[in-house]
Amino acid sequence: MGSRSKTNFAYIAGFLDGDGSLMLQLKKRKDGNKSRNRFMATICFYQDIRHAKPLIWIRNILEIGYISKRKDNIAELRINGYRQIERLIKELLPFIKFKKVQAKSLLKSIKILQKKKLPESDLRKLVDNILLIQEENYRTRRKKNKRELLKVLGLTP
Amino acid sequence: MGSRSKTNFAYIAGFLDGDGSLMLQLKKRKDGNKSRNRFMATICFYQDIRHAKPLIWIRNILEIGYISKRKDNIAELRINGYRQIERLIKELLPFIKFKKVQAKSLLKSIKILQKKKLPESDLRKLVDNILLIQEENYRTRRKKNKRELLKVLGLTP
Repeated sequence: MGSRSKTNFAYIAGFLDGDGSLMLQLKKRKDGNKSRNRFMATICFYQDIRHAKPLIWIRNILEIGYISKRKDNIAELRINGYRQIERLIKELLPFIKFKKVQAKSLLKSIKILQKKKLPESDLRKLVDNILLIQEENYRTRRKKNKRELLKVLGLTP
Repeated sequence: MGSRSKTNFAYIAGFLDGDGSLMLQLKKRKDGNKSRNRFMATICFYQDIRHAKPLIWIRNILEIGYISKRKDNIAELRINGYRQIERLIKELLPFIKFKKVQAKSLLKSIKILQKKKLPESDLRKLVDNILLIQEENYRTRRKKNKRELLKVLGLTP
């Protein structure tokens, strides 16, 4: 069986459900006196730095992403890029059991983000997807609420 | 595909490599004025209590093990029993990538433990396997060393 086999993707989906996350974030960038906004899609796998080998293996199978060490001794494999994430989610989706909502919502968002122009209705959909994914991830850290996200995009609530 | 499919076992192996452990422990029991020793084999899956659903799903697929909540808000699915562990390791082994040493050593230990009588040479092999598995798990908590384990079994170092 090749390295991009079904059982390898099922394995990676198990690892992701256990110790990974799917994220959509709105990044505000000041660019001189213009401000540009950017939606960032991320899939991340975490592991204690002493057990980072699975991350290296996953990195080698997928051939995408960067491994880095955080200050709290967690190693993470971080994958960005709309096309890379789109392809990866399609491969993992049949096997993901518990992060399906996040995966599907991220996939829909990426389809929107690959359009050349984003009308306000699309921006609003993306904001709703950010919130949906955040809620599913049950993060405890304070995140921007809908009002704040729309404000970044210059839209009224 | 049935619930005990290859991709489900690959998924569970990924979850185990990310957030699980394989253990062999020597438990000393005082039983009146006799003391009896018992080797305990365990496979454990962990998850934050807020995300315990994967543990329930794994429990339902495997139809073995108990889920409990620890004081530190970690939920664990704990599987014991030589026969159950033996069967499970055989099913997971083709897909485990990083805990293979522990899995193989636990499997060998269980073969020994299913004998009716354990001569001293077998007890010594089991002690070596406890130490090998511990070392692979890189536990930080202080564990019994070889001298102490042999002492529990009444054997000379």
